[in-house]
Amino acid sequence: MAKNGKISDAVIRRLPKYYRYLGDLLKNGINRISSNELSRLTGFTASQIRQDLNNFGGFGQQGYGYDAKKLREEISKILGLDHKYKVVIVGAGNIGQAVANYAGFYEEGFEIMALFDKNPKLVGLRIRDLEIMDIDDLKEYLTHHKIDLVVLCTPKEASQGIADIVTSCGVQAIWNFAPTDIKVTDNVAIENVRMNESLYTLVYYYNEKSNNFNN
Amino acid sequence: MAKNGKISDAVIRRLPKYYRYLGDLLKNGINRISSNELSRLTGFTASQIRQDLNNFGGFGQQGYGYDAKKLREEISKILGLDHKYKVVIVGAGNIGQAVANYAGFYEEGFEIMALFDKNPKLVGLRIRDLEIMDIDDLKEYLTHHKIDLVVLCTPKEASQGIADIVTSCGVQAIWNFAPTDIKVTDNVAIENVRMNESLYTLVYYYNEKSNNFNN
Repeated sequence: MAKNGKISDAVIRRLPKYYRYLGDLLKNGINRISSNELSRLTGFTASQIRQDLNNFGGFGQQGYGYDAKKLREEISKILGLDHKYKVVIVGAGNIGQAVANYAGFYEEGFEIMALFDKNPKLVGLRIRDLEIMDIDDLKEYLTHHKIDLVVLCTPKEASQGIADIVTSCGVQAIWNFAPTDIKVTDNVAIENVRMNESLYTLVYYYNEKSNNFNN
Repeated sequence: MAKNGKISDAVIRRLPKYYRYLGDLLKNGINRISSNELSRLTGFTASQIRQDLNNFGGFGQQGYGYDAKKLREEISKILGLDHKYKVVIVGAGNIGQAVANYAGFYEEGFEIMALFDKNPKLVGLRIRDLEIMDIDDLKEYLTHHKIDLVVLCTPKEASQGIADIVTSCGVQAIWNFAPTDIKVTDNVAIENVRMNESLYTLVYYYNEKSNNFNN
């Protein structure tokens, strides 16, 4: 896909942002956009944008700009968003339920197949059209169903153990909401959602703007 | 604070990661660390780390490395984590409750003062020791309480309206979980939590590792 082999992680992490902004443009009926306009939208420099998109063969045309629809489709293919994914949520507390209830995931091709929890008060309850299953049945379930991605919403003490179970059953992608680092083998992709980091950044800018502690 | 004036956004966004890793080191009894070891931990290059930390006067000593405790304290001061913040959560659904229930925030100096919702089924319920209040009382509440930070967990249709209310009451920091862009004036800091972006990145690496669609 990439012109020159491996794409850097920093570029990969900007792609979802391009994808989102291009979607917004299309929703607003805009299909042609220059790197300068993309720069204003995304906050990245125009030269960074051109460089990023060049990684994938460069879809811009001199004097025309980018075709938003085509560019978004290409990014979708690069990320793999043109495919469907089967998802299991482990931990059906607030975060697990929030993920299960977020309708957007369905539209984007993520199908939630099952939820698991160990809390007997939650097991048996229904979230959307899914009954929360007992964590003791997780291994059995994963042995009989091909699941692409596990969303890990357990307390941090439980997370490594659950990760070991799901990866031993062949799951190769973990979206980790537990506030701890999980060790997985090299053939497993893992993304940690670290809400604190965004909160701390917010606090920095808050203090800068409010001059709270500087006057 | 910074040696050379304004610190770039990219550096600011790496500070919470340093902060977290240094905290983990200290918990494990490690107080002295080289930029090379920090590099292995964080995934940033050693030269990037030295450059980042130089922004703040450079706490490393040739041949010794960094003093983890001192460095973490400095980062804490730069981010403003050595202060306390009063927080209000608007939207007491799954995400709002998850934020309210996350004990870590209290330890880190974020005190949740009140939760608001418009759903009559939620108003009056207790989350931890707080009763969920009626959204109609939000403006009145903010007029009489000095709040540093509002966590916005409303559906996206409601989010701009709520943001307008809270900023008009003088709140200068919004942590936005609503999946939409909010417009605020320049004196307000806003951070958007975009969970989709981390999911899309995960999917990219999943496909790379599993070779799902390439064979």
